[in-house]
Amino acid sequence: MTEQNIREILTRVRKGSLSIDKGLEKLKHLPFEDVGFARIDHHRAIRQGFPEVVFGRGKTVHQIRAIVERMLAHEQNILITRSSAEVFRAVRKLERQAQFYPDSGAILIHRDKTQHGKGKILIACAGTADIPVAEEALVTADAMGNTVENLYDVGVAGIHRILSERARLAEARVIVVVAGMEGALPSVVGGLVSVPVIAVPTSIGYGASLNGIAALLGMLNSCSSNVTVVNIDNGFGAGYVASLINRL
Amino acid sequence: MTEQNIREILTRVRKGSLSIDKGLEKLKHLPFEDVGFARIDHHRAIRQGFPEVVFGRGKTVHQIRAIVERMLAHEQNILITRSSAEVFRAVRKLERQAQFYPDSGAILIHRDKTQHGKGKILIACAGTADIPVAEEALVTADAMGNTVENLYDVGVAGIHRILSERARLAEARVIVVVAGMEGALPSVVGGLVSVPVIAVPTSIGYGASLNGIAALLGMLNSCSSNVTVVNIDNGFGAGYVASLINRL
Amino acid sequence: MTEQNIREILTRVRKGSLSIDKGLEKLKHLPFEDVGFARIDHHRAIRQGFPEVVFGRGKTVHQIRAIVERMLAHEQNILITRSSAEVFRAVRKLERQAQFYPDSGAILIHRDKTQHGKGKILIACAGTADIPVAEEALVTADAMGNTVENLYDVGVAGIHRILSERARLAEARVIVVVAGMEGALPSVVGGLVSVPVIAVPTSIGYGASLNGIAALLGMLNSCSSNVTVVNIDNGFGAGYVASLINRL
Amino acid sequence: MTEQNIREILTRVRKGSLSIDKGLEKLKHLPFEDVGFARIDHHRAIRQGFPEVVFGRGKTVHQIRAIVERMLAHEQNILITRSSAEVFRAVRKLERQAQFYPDSGAILIHRDKTQHGKGKILIACAGTADIPVAEEALVTADAMGNTVENLYDVGVAGIHRILSERARLAEARVIVVVAGMEGALPSVVGGLVSVPVIAVPTSIGYGASLNGIAALLGMLNSCSSNVTVVNIDNGFGAGYVASLINRL
Amino acid sequence: MTEQNIREILTRVRKGSLSIDKGLEKLKHLPFEDVGFARIDHHRAIRQGFPEVVFGRGKTVHQIRAIVERMLAHEQNILITRSSAEVFRAVRKLERQAQFYPDSGAILIHRDKTQHGKGKILIACAGTADIPVAEEALVTADAMGNTVENLYDVGVAGIHRILSERARLAEARVIVVVAGMEGALPSVVGGLVSVPVIAVPTSIGYGASLNGIAALLGMLNSCSSNVTVVNIDNGFGAGYVASLINRL
Amino acid sequence: MTEQNIREILTRVRKGSLSIDKGLEKLKHLPFEDVGFARIDHHRAIRQGFPEVVFGRGKTVHQIRAIVERMLAHEQNILITRSSAEVFRAVRKLERQAQFYPDSGAILIHRDKTQHGKGKILIACAGTADIPVAEEALVTADAMGNTVENLYDVGVAGIHRILSERARLAEARVIVVVAGMEGALPSVVGGLVSVPVIAVPTSIGYGASLNGIAALLGMLNSCSSNVTVVNIDNGFGAGYVASLINRL
Amino acid sequence: MTEQNIREILTRVRKGSLSIDKGLEKLKHLPFEDVGFARIDHHRAIRQGFPEVVFGRGKTVHQIRAIVERMLAHEQNILITRSSAEVFRAVRKLERQAQFYPDSGAILIHRDKTQHGKGKILIACAGTADIPVAEEALVTADAMGNTVENLYDVGVAGIHRILSERARLAEARVIVVVAGMEGALPSVVGGLVSVPVIAVPTSIGYGASLNGIAALLGMLNSCSSNVTVVNIDNGFGAGYVASLINRL
Amino acid sequence: MTEQNIREILTRVRKGSLSIDKGLEKLKHLPFEDVGFARIDHHRAIRQGFPEVVFGRGKTVHQIRAIVERMLAHEQNILITRSSAEVFRAVRKLERQAQFYPDSGAILIHRDKTQHGKGKILIACAGTADIPVAEEALVTADAMGNTVENLYDVGVAGIHRILSERARLAEARVIVVVAGMEGALPSVVGGLVSVPVIAVPTSIGYGASLNGIAALLGMLNSCSSNVTVVNIDNGFGAGYVASLINRL
Repeated sequence: MTEQNIREILTRVRKGSLSIDKGLEKLKHLPFEDVGFARIDHHRAIRQGFPEVVFGRGKTVHQIRAIVERMLAHEQNILITRSSAEVFRAVRKLERQAQFYPDSGAILIHRDKTQHGKGKILIACAGTADIPVAEEALVTADAMGNTVENLYDVGVAGIHRILSERARLAEARVIVVVAGMEGALPSVVGGLVSVPVIAVPTSIGYGASLNGIAALLGMLNSCSSNVTVVNIDNGFGAGYVASLINRL
Repeated sequence: MTEQNIREILTRVRKGSLSIDKGLEKLKHLPFEDVGFARIDHHRAIRQGFPEVVFGRGKTVHQIRAIVERMLAHEQNILITRSSAEVFRAVRKLERQAQFYPDSGAILIHRDKTQHGKGKILIACAGTADIPVAEEALVTADAMGNTVENLYDVGVAGIHRILSERARLAEARVIVVVAGMEGALPSVVGGLVSVPVIAVPTSIGYGASLNGIAALLGMLNSCSSNVTVVNIDNGFGAGYVASLINRL
Repeated sequence: MTEQNIREILTRVRKGSLSIDKGLEKLKHLPFEDVGFARIDHHRAIRQGFPEVVFGRGKTVHQIRAIVERMLAHEQNILITRSSAEVFRAVRKLERQAQFYPDSGAILIHRDKTQHGKGKILIACAGTADIPVAEEALVTADAMGNTVENLYDVGVAGIHRILSERARLAEARVIVVVAGMEGALPSVVGGLVSVPVIAVPTSIGYGASLNGIAALLGMLNSCSSNVTVVNIDNGFGAGYVASLINRL
Repeated sequence: MTEQNIREILTRVRKGSLSIDKGLEKLKHLPFEDVGFARIDHHRAIRQGFPEVVFGRGKTVHQIRAIVERMLAHEQNILITRSSAEVFRAVRKLERQAQFYPDSGAILIHRDKTQHGKGKILIACAGTADIPVAEEALVTADAMGNTVENLYDVGVAGIHRILSERARLAEARVIVVVAGMEGALPSVVGGLVSVPVIAVPTSIGYGASLNGIAALLGMLNSCSSNVTVVNIDNGFGAGYVASLINRL
Repeated sequence: MTEQNIREILTRVRKGSLSIDKGLEKLKHLPFEDVGFARIDHHRAIRQGFPEVVFGRGKTVHQIRAIVERMLAHEQNILITRSSAEVFRAVRKLERQAQFYPDSGAILIHRDKTQHGKGKILIACAGTADIPVAEEALVTADAMGNTVENLYDVGVAGIHRILSERARLAEARVIVVVAGMEGALPSVVGGLVSVPVIAVPTSIGYGASLNGIAALLGMLNSCSSNVTVVNIDNGFGAGYVASLINRL
Repeated sequence: MTEQNIREILTRVRKGSLSIDKGLEKLKHLPFEDVGFARIDHHRAIRQGFPEVVFGRGKTVHQIRAIVERMLAHEQNILITRSSAEVFRAVRKLERQAQFYPDSGAILIHRDKTQHGKGKILIACAGTADIPVAEEALVTADAMGNTVENLYDVGVAGIHRILSERARLAEARVIVVVAGMEGALPSVVGGLVSVPVIAVPTSIGYGASLNGIAALLGMLNSCSSNVTVVNIDNGFGAGYVASLINRL
Repeated sequence: MTEQNIREILTRVRKGSLSIDKGLEKLKHLPFEDVGFARIDHHRAIRQGFPEVVFGRGKTVHQIRAIVERMLAHEQNILITRSSAEVFRAVRKLERQAQFYPDSGAILIHRDKTQHGKGKILIACAGTADIPVAEEALVTADAMGNTVENLYDVGVAGIHRILSERARLAEARVIVVVAGMEGALPSVVGGLVSVPVIAVPTSIGYGASLNGIAALLGMLNSCSSNVTVVNIDNGFGAGYVASLINRL
Repeated sequence: MTEQNIREILTRVRKGSLSIDKGLEKLKHLPFEDVGFARIDHHRAIRQGFPEVVFGRGKTVHQIRAIVERMLAHEQNILITRSSAEVFRAVRKLERQAQFYPDSGAILIHRDKTQHGKGKILIACAGTADIPVAEEALVTADAMGNTVENLYDVGVAGIHRILSERARLAEARVIVVVAGMEGALPSVVGGLVSVPVIAVPTSIGYGASLNGIAALLGMLNSCSSNVTVVNIDNGFGAGYVASLINRL
């Protein structure tokens, strides 16, 4: 139920064309109308530059194509995560300006380039094998209207690599740190800055890495107080929250 | 917001003492009124004979005493779970007819003895060590207005024990089965009856019982299709759901 | 051993054509007769409209074909779970009216449409990816003679989606709630109704979802007292128990 | 090594009272000086209103007393976490205005009440048993110069409780959500707002809650994209990050 | 129902003092009689020298006293596991010849010293800290009428310790091997003999021993094919099975 | 070092052709000679009818062929586990009488049919999906010279199935019980007999079965004292230990 | 920043061509120079005969080829781990003397055969299935300039196998022990020698081996004090540390 | 059997006072004599300055006192781990020069101060809470004749703390790194040096630290190749291995 619907009910009640009891009956179900309000929020969100997102994983080319087709009717950016070259070819037929990020499998239709972020988001990752997840965070932040920079392969085993980039760390308003194996990089980065750090464990590693559980536990136990954590390999979530913070 | 509130708004809108915009403003927030509806549901629940429940674990004698004091203003039954003899002494000063079940630590003030259940609930347990949890289920079902019977110490290592009670199993409308260690009893009971079986794993055991995880996993993997499971040691939950089913 | 067998032994003992010792010898083995009694129960079950069920997973087309062929001799419904289009083609040659549910891989030969359920079973699921498991629950409840409705894609991240369906929730006699990832939907639904809720965790998710363990644990710890849980992805079990409850 | 030290070396080199080689020797070890810089950062941090923090857990009354005594020489706020009434009595002798928060065991010496936050931080928790952790987050955010509000006992089993507070949720710039058991509240809150949500699992629960692991996994798998997670019971960390975000 | 009961029914049927229908009624419930048969088995078991066993863990002195009092009416051995000096004092007042084994907390009333075992049972343990569990196995085997020997502190880190006892290993008909930490001893012993080895993991260790899980997993993965495993710290079970094997 | 070697050294020492010091030197290394003794044990074992075993898993057709070729030089039975039809074809070219068991992938060359077992080994399994593991146990026991019987599909959800076979259970000298899912069958069987029961968990199941961990934990926590456990799917180990017991 | 840079700054300060404040500014960033020092360390490392390492897992043939091409410009050894025959063919075109180790998938270009190790490194493994991991350790130690010996298939189930090689164990300066399943070999070897033992668990096994976790836990709980552990299947790491120790 | 025993046998054989067959019989059992040889090794070890070690955990004052009394007969150092002030008082009555380390509960009787180490061992720890474990490593290395230095509270959240000590890191021949929580320090230290690093996870932390499992997993997944790991809280083991390495 939209505002318009409520207004109509009230108008009809005032006019007497709707009895108070009948109006009561309709309005009593307003909790259902919550849906309507949420939809309005949703629309508002869109106006603010939030992209439409399609989680590509497990969806067929056909399904993604159909969803994107309907999304194209609006003006916002469209982000498809964990997709493939095959999906990209299908999407590109719908919209020429679609771009493919092969490491992460992300596809971005970047139509609205309004900047919503107030500062810079930095995406750091520990090893080259973590780049796909870092890239997913980067594309997400990009799609949400942020200035984003990346800092790849700065793992703690060569601590000078991250230390030499302290200037860039210091410039960021929020930092996403992606790491697999022992997942130690967020603690080090967290200790070097005083802005929020969003840690993303990756499933990179073998044996006792337990598909990213080791990195996840490490990050949750970070001795740096400015670190929060998202799910293993969840580059999208990290980029999303970083964007929300950067809008504040 | 109650029905009464909505009616007043509509009346004032019709009368013109409230503008349509002001009325809209008030009604737009109706999702908040959901609370009110829920409260009404709550009241209705009470009228149907649901007990007021105090989860005693971690609450002080003083806290429980204060809560019970306010509950006594109503007429429904009052159930305090995982309590102690000390709490019981305090509660009994408030209400003479309070009863204490020392195995489970439950206290029941059984004021309304209306039967809400349509049939009999049977509470079975595998070993004597499981009795505290079984008793919690039993007292809960009792407080909710059911005929309840118990069948204790009928574990599968002496399979004749449960088989010799098939007649009683056959009479039950819903069965709660409590077991620790390997948690096999619900599967056997489930195979003997065609009514719903609610399985309660207990933390009884040592070593590879992992504080009830072994029994929990066993029950979740039951090859009897009529078995559902609640949390380890959750006798209250099992008695509660059994009561809901027995009211149908 | 059937009643008839016992009667014959007793008759022969009375007549003297069987000595007391010989009769004793035969009767001492009566526990074996339990089998007979169970078989009778089984037959009774069939007469009550329980379907014959074939768990399709891991069985060859040939095996399923052979089993279904024998089942077709009886009149009850036949349900094949976790099957494939290939199996369906083979089954359909045996029986024209077989129907295939591609999301869940279920095949239903619905010959006996007697209604056994007293009310309506509602099957809700959190996301579109949970639909295969929800569908398995739905087909099972259908095969067991119930009026079933579904409510898909009502996950808690958009809470208005489930709230807007409170009317339908309120009409159900028992509700199956299917959810992966954090598995929070059963708690919310459980709080909105006062009927039994059967929660089904799904293996949907990645990383810390641990193939459904996260959702399973969430459901076992539900703060709604009317929730019980079945195994991960066990739509069949949930539909089965819901049907048993709906028959009461 | 502080700036002052470097300046002195340079001055002595210019004056010639220190040879270039000797100066080189001293400065070559400047990485050590990083410590000094960090201290300066630290001082800067203090000027920005960051409190001095003592993690009280496992420290004796004597140890905490000694640490606080030295901290009192500066002007910043002092926060002691997971402490006790006994520690409080000792601290209060040192500083009259120390305040004790018995639920969380926090002690706050709130000397500098400058507001550093730009908006309001909201701390929500699911059940009364989660209040100690929520309070720790609240005191932390308070100590760091924020306007903080709390919203306790709004768990998802009574979904109207959180829905009725949507207005307050909408006013917050960042939200901390504390929950044990199934840990579902952050997902629901996350779906209702478009600001960052920091989820804190608590060790509240029993059996399959696995001391908070169930809640932690649930939060990591949240289907709301604006949720990040900190360690189990880490109210301090959540309050800290919320404060950092609120300063942006 | 005992044989005697069945005989009486048959006699009354033959005599005509019981109608065939009434007899049928009584006998139809014979599955219940299974209990009786089991009891007879039980009695037979006792005659074979199986001890009566009281699992002492979690039982009060009063409870154990009451149970033992009734057991003393029979002639078999009585074994109380995981008990205490306090229980022992109470038991000893009932029966002078009770013996206490303080390491394991076992109490044995050894009245029937008939040898049932055909050979020798050897109980080996890796470290001195494993002795309590080894002793429980030893007392159990003793109570069941076996010649038992022990071989303590022969862990694999000093491999000569077990090698120097090969002659004794070679003489055993079945071997119980008790070990905590890495649990490697059963594999080594298993490789040295060609008789069954029953491995008992203990909860001895710390950190990654996970309260005996490490030892348990090690034993389950033993590369010696003659090793089977019982629960962590289950000396009783190991002694029991060893006794069964030694009777064959 | 064989007996013959030691004899030669001693002879040479007596003759004086070897000095005492030199002899000492040679004999001091006798622990190395242990190998020789072990080899002799090995030979003795072979004479007793132990088969040569090839663990087929992960070995190429070529490798298995080469190993079997050398084994055929001796007279003992040859057992290849977890193999394939392809391997079977290769082996059969080497030895006509090789037999293939397709469920378990076992190949047996059964040349020596001497009976070493004193009684009967019974192999029971809970469901048809457990048959491959049960068959591996059966073939192993067969290869080691035992009379073996099987009892398939007697899971506890239809308890009459196992109860109706009590006579056969009673005849066995040792019983292997194979079960997946909740793994409850060994407890029930263990309660029905007084001989050793070797429980084999299988990886059959899904979701919370955790690839057999649920069944494994259930069996380790069995409330029947005569149950010991081997690794998940380790039919070979169970058949091997059962054979050792049956030889006693 | 190199020494040379610092010297220049100091010289310019002395000369007055750089003000003290400007010099201060430049030197304040010296922590960045840490990078430079680290690079120098890196170069030094190369001069000492450390090989360049390419972790082949997950890299394409093309990527490895490109990396190796650049590495060939220097004179050190080049080690590629977890590679394939296909990669080998590509690498061999670049450098004729490349050698392939098919069990481990390692490729070694062994140009500098200088011995850096002071003694002998022994690589032992428990079963033939552990050889790939052992070989990775061996090739690594070889590439780092060590005398390496191997001792394969000496698992503890046939304890004489390792005992017969005590002489070779005694000659080693450091020992790598590789084992899957129960992972007991390092404890036995550790007890036989007084040099450091590096234990490598492997993922060999099934069921309760949990992909190497069982072996890993066993090794971490070793009762031999001279044992340290690396990640599951991490032959490279073990060979690397052994080489470092052997250089001391 | 000692060398002396073998010599006597050989002498008697040569003399003819022992027949070759009898001598053979005695010598065939020589593997048992391995014990004797090992004991001799043990004595040799002592002469090399290895301390006698008493693992204090779980031992009574009386037991430790008795053990130490016998140890004092020899001249080597005596180390008692995880002990208490009460034990110390008892030990000190036996030997005046005993020293107590209250953080770790270690007691050292340091009689032989011979240096066996060739270089310096550095013991670093991340936080003050890790000091007890670090101290245990330090006392162990001290007792084994090493020059040991400590570097406490240098965790990665303040990376400058460890960087400022690079000179001391560079001087060490082997480094022990102790850390709880995320366990990241060994990776950072490992990247700064080219000597072996022994990582010790501690049980410091809460929630997702899982009593040290998080730190343990982090260390096992270290991206620094020179890191090996010991059990959680195993300071003794780390100090022991570091000492072995430092003797090389």
